[in-house]
Amino acid sequence: MEFSSKLLENAVNEVSQLPGIGKRTALRLVLHLLRQPNEQTDALSQALQMMRNNIKFCKSCNNISDLEVCEICSNPNRDIGLICVVEDVRDVMAIENTSSFRGLYHVLGGKISPMDGIGPHDLNIKLLVDKVKEGKVKELIFALSSTMEGDTTNFYIYKQIQDYDVDISTIARGVSVGDELEYADEITLGRSIVNRVPFEASLKL
Amino acid sequence: MEFSSKLLENAVNEVSQLPGIGKRTALRLVLHLLRQPNEQTDALSQALQMMRNNIKFCKSCNNISDLEVCEICSNPNRDIGLICVVEDVRDVMAIENTSSFRGLYHVLGGKISPMDGIGPHDLNIKLLVDKVKEGKVKELIFALSSTMEGDTTNFYIYKQIQDYDVDISTIARGVSVGDELEYADEITLGRSIVNRVPFEASLKL
Repeated sequence: MEFSSKLLENAVNEVSQLPGIGKRTALRLVLHLLRQPNEQTDALSQALQMMRNNIKFCKSCNNISDLEVCEICSNPNRDIGLICVVEDVRDVMAIENTSSFRGLYHVLGGKISPMDGIGPHDLNIKLLVDKVKEGKVKELIFALSSTMEGDTTNFYIYKQIQDYDVDISTIARGVSVGDELEYADEITLGRSIVNRVPFEASLKL
Repeated sequence: MEFSSKLLENAVNEVSQLPGIGKRTALRLVLHLLRQPNEQTDALSQALQMMRNNIKFCKSCNNISDLEVCEICSNPNRDIGLICVVEDVRDVMAIENTSSFRGLYHVLGGKISPMDGIGPHDLNIKLLVDKVKEGKVKELIFALSSTMEGDTTNFYIYKQIQDYDVDISTIARGVSVGDELEYADEITLGRSIVNRVPFEASLKL
């Protein structure tokens, strides 16, 4: 791509560093900003810099927060004996939206993935193991993606805490609510039969 | 969407103002920046602000430029009697890539579109009409998109300059090179037959 302006070229190059955004999309976004008042670009730039430089991670669960300890961890109404292990803040938001979980979270910050150069020591696993060793945790729920990386991470953590007195569970895998059975993949469908639920219990949900 | 941090929420809100980027994509982009060194966010923010605050538009053709007069307009090897009328800088870049045009450009900055509240006076039309009135322009090529808005804009300009001594042409519409005939829409195919080209002339391209 040949640009008529260095300023334009720099802006497009920086925007196209973002994942899933190529040069053409970057150019479209930058030209959009050019058509808007200067204030919009200023607000965007400042919001990104403020966020990047000032954001904190909760000391207890590693979730993104504006405080030292996040609102969930400091909420006295939540069950501190129940911890849900998730990959990142999006998973916390998704589970909070369901309003069906009243315990605390533990945000790992990723999954073990040798292909991407992410090992156990790049994740926030030690803090979780320490929590379990302290003996305050009664149940741990693994809620990572059902992929090779997710399963590896689950197993790595399991090996470190299996000798402690803690129940370990993983979220149920099965056919999505509202989905046609014929479109479910065979592994999911198989698991949903093995892990079937008493009908009367399912009526209460 | 419930955010655990105001800083995160602000950043997501600003990014999701960009066209074609929803809240979920914005969150994905912002979380990506959080995983990268601070310097990447700083570079992105600065490039956008520098671009927005310092970019110039060529006095002659209205193309984006770092100089008062852009490199194309100030190039003595280009034919100043031939002007290609385009919508924005992307069209200039696309035509320059073909290396088949040696004239100058005139960037309108959009198309007449009452639906979007864009009238003739929001575009850079007067400067073009003035150029034609000065008598230096021998031929004008309309290279706007072949849409209702593009055709309206072409016609609006045509009405203002039709009494002056200038040839007015429009880029050819026809079946794309490499395309199967059966997939071409009927209007395009019809135009490609009406505007057929002598075979021997086509061999020289």
